[in-house]
Amino acid sequence: MWPIIMASFILVSQDSHFPLANIPFGTGFSTHNPNPRCVSRIGDFVVDLAALEAEGFFQELSNTHFFSNPTLNSFMSEDKALWRAYRSKIQALFAAENPLVRDNEQLKAKILIPISEFTNTLPVNIGDYTDFYASRNHAFNVGCMFRGPQNALQDNWLRLPVGYHGRSSSVVVSRHPVKRPRGQIKLLDSPDPVFSSCKKLDHEVEIGVFLGGKLNKLGEPINIAVASEHVFGLVLLNDWSARDIQSWEYVPLGPFTAKNFQTSISPWIITTLALEPFTTGLPAQDPVPLPYLREDPPTSFNITIETFIKTPSLSEPHKISTTNLQHLYWSIYQMLAHHSVSGCNMRPGDLLGTGTISGPTPDSLGCLLEMSTNGKTPVALPNGETRSFLNDGDELIIVGKAESENFTIGFGDVRGVILPALEDQYFHN
Amino acid sequence: MWPIIMASFILVSQDSHFPLANIPFGTGFSTHNPNPRCVSRIGDFVVDLAALEAEGFFQELSNTHFFSNPTLNSFMSEDKALWRAYRSKIQALFAAENPLVRDNEQLKAKILIPISEFTNTLPVNIGDYTDFYASRNHAFNVGCMFRGPQNALQDNWLRLPVGYHGRSSSVVVSRHPVKRPRGQIKLLDSPDPVFSSCKKLDHEVEIGVFLGGKLNKLGEPINIAVASEHVFGLVLLNDWSARDIQSWEYVPLGPFTAKNFQTSISPWIITTLALEPFTTGLPAQDPVPLPYLREDPPTSFNITIETFIKTPSLSEPHKISTTNLQHLYWSIYQMLAHHSVSGCNMRPGDLLGTGTISGPTPDSLGCLLEMSTNGKTPVALPNGETRSFLNDGDELIIVGKAESENFTIGFGDVRGVILPALEDQYFHN
Ligand SMILES: [Ca+2]
Ligand SMILES: [Ca+2]
Ligand SMILES: [Mg+2]
Ligand SMILES: [Mg+2]
Ligand code: NI
Repeated sequence: MWPIIMASFILVSQDSHFPLANIPFGTGFSTHNPNPRCVSRIGDFVVDLAALEAEGFFQELSNTHFFSNPTLNSFMSEDKALWRAYRSKIQALFAAENPLVRDNEQLKAKILIPISEFTNTLPVNIGDYTDFYASRNHAFNVGCMFRGPQNALQDNWLRLPVGYHGRSSSVVVSRHPVKRPRGQIKLLDSPDPVFSSCKKLDHEVEIGVFLGGKLNKLGEPINIAVASEHVFGLVLLNDWSARDIQSWEYVPLGPFTAKNFQTSISPWIITTLALEPFTTGLPAQDPVPLPYLREDPPTSFNITIETFIKTPSLSEPHKISTTNLQHLYWSIYQMLAHHSVSGCNMRPGDLLGTGTISGPTPDSLGCLLEMSTNGKTPVALPNGETRSFLNDGDELIIVGKAESENFTIGFGDVRGVILPALEDQYFHN
Repeated sequence: MWPIIMASFILVSQDSHFPLANIPFGTGFSTHNPNPRCVSRIGDFVVDLAALEAEGFFQELSNTHFFSNPTLNSFMSEDKALWRAYRSKIQALFAAENPLVRDNEQLKAKILIPISEFTNTLPVNIGDYTDFYASRNHAFNVGCMFRGPQNALQDNWLRLPVGYHGRSSSVVVSRHPVKRPRGQIKLLDSPDPVFSSCKKLDHEVEIGVFLGGKLNKLGEPINIAVASEHVFGLVLLNDWSARDIQSWEYVPLGPFTAKNFQTSISPWIITTLALEPFTTGLPAQDPVPLPYLREDPPTSFNITIETFIKTPSLSEPHKISTTNLQHLYWSIYQMLAHHSVSGCNMRPGDLLGTGTISGPTPDSLGCLLEMSTNGKTPVALPNGETRSFLNDGDELIIVGKAESENFTIGFGDVRGVILPALEDQYFHN
């Protein structure tokens, strides 16, 4: 089951997230070529897949030109067998023992771009984005704060992966700053809501799941037995959340302006093929789910996710949490089966968020709302500062990786700096 | 303010929805040309805008070829002044007194298609679809059934237009049949949910609002003073709803599989330019909304919306409701201002649903859930049948029009027949 650990002729440092065993997919442009196109990455070099394709290196696999597109949607629409073939081909081309590219300086100059000369773009045209709520610890902790411990976990929570539709237009790639949102807030000591900038700006640590392959037609659910064929790969996802706006608006139809102002993802899509060695199960589910959700055992991946905060006064980012995808109660394949159960058609490029991933301990929580108990227990930083929520100027950084003794499959990071809210007369009241 | 009532040389019957004063926009293909393209309609003729454009008739307005595209997104991305210019140009070309097209039989054969030889397609590539909940009567009636009269209208309802994100992939054009959805249902007399076909399949009468123009960047809200510049036009919308699935799943994050299986829209987008003569206000809002929602007075349109049911045993469709867009509490421009208040970027082609439009009387309700009081007061049909919800084989038809003494601006209709649920072993339990 474990892949042979191949070395590349490209130097890859021991702690790199992007060894030859990874082969992530992304998009972007370089200082010498401003056209966004599809790329991969090995160590600190970006591999220009569009250039490789133009040179004919993939002709044996397909006549379609996938990689000159500004997004990966066309490639993601193919099936898993083809994704696997392309991945193997790329690994073979850059293997240490293969002279074809290694010894061709002219070719290497065309297809390898130092990461410092490259800017990532949003890798996918996202048709629909859906956010789930699949961590039991998170649902319970937040439920306690919004509704009290009695009603924290709703009756349906253990029966189905609760999810809701999100906003696809405002999904951005890492490093896009976050303008502090404004909106309606209802303070406890006032009968009327006010218009205000958000005073409780939070992050949510999630994994994003990109769908691909030949997906279902409207009216035909996806059987859980084939759900894994329809996941192209994973990214880190930060579901920025305005808690004070959320608590006022979310009843009875769910979060809206508290979430739709921005969602950030990491730029490199890590394929489930690369993550295969890190496949794990999840604890048995009790009660046993209905047959359409039955996966034996539910599948997860051992992905460690660390969260850091860098305030303007801190000299370096400070770690505030370490969690793991395995802390979810529901699997990503159960999410997909449930999403489509009533016949909803899924499309290549659709994005599912897992929901905030909180572990069972205080150092494994997925958002500041939980860490600070909604402001009651602020997080202490090493320079004496505290944070209950995010301040202007703070940078929030989420890093993910799957590690074995021999190698690391990394996600890189997703990060964003908080900018002050807009100031304009019209909105004042 | 009222347009001069122009006559076309194309014969338009007195009761047609599509006189020269309308000029709706749609897409589709004809028996002689299978390429989907942009079109308009006068009486019972489809006007091939792509063919008119290819002949150079719009060259004085723009060099861009908008209408050979399979959707209207490119045209909708332009500003209202250009929409107005194109509309006037089309009206002038088909005016009774203009010989240019009228007396050119060869040209008419190229650009006019009998409606019987034409098939409408989904007119827009919808980036994101959002559904609101803006009828006070509907929110109160449904709130009573789901939560009791005490909690029927939540605290936030009179303060902001409650909305939630919907699923854009499953928005289809009229006449697409509806496969009865299946999913998790929790019956009152059982401790466990079951997997079942929906037993409470319902419709929701709504108006769909298509956005256009130069829209806002991420982080920059749309000022309500300019919101009307960003609405391209309106359609009829049926937000099919599985009430038994909904009542179990919707807490706390809103409807999901109960709604995402299908949403149907009428094929012709009626521009707000055509609806200008039917502009009305809405009753004063109490409490007065926050400044970012203040529109004085809130704008609506006098659009009558009738709902019909045709069961297999009925000889003709039977009217079950007559309502009006004016029955909404919140205006469509207030919805747009609220949607973007925290910085959510809107895109040309985005679709907003108003939410179910229920009037104050029993004959003006927007869904069967309300008409039948969740099954307690079934609707009687003229042949002795009754309906609390939709049966397999039933067709639900919604018709909309704005009428004055002199002319009608119609929407045509949105319709769909209910097909039996899928039967397959795998899902049985
Ligand atoms: Ca979330
Ligand atoms: Ca609705
Ligand atoms: Mg979220
Ligand atoms: Mg709806
Ligand atoms: Ni969407």
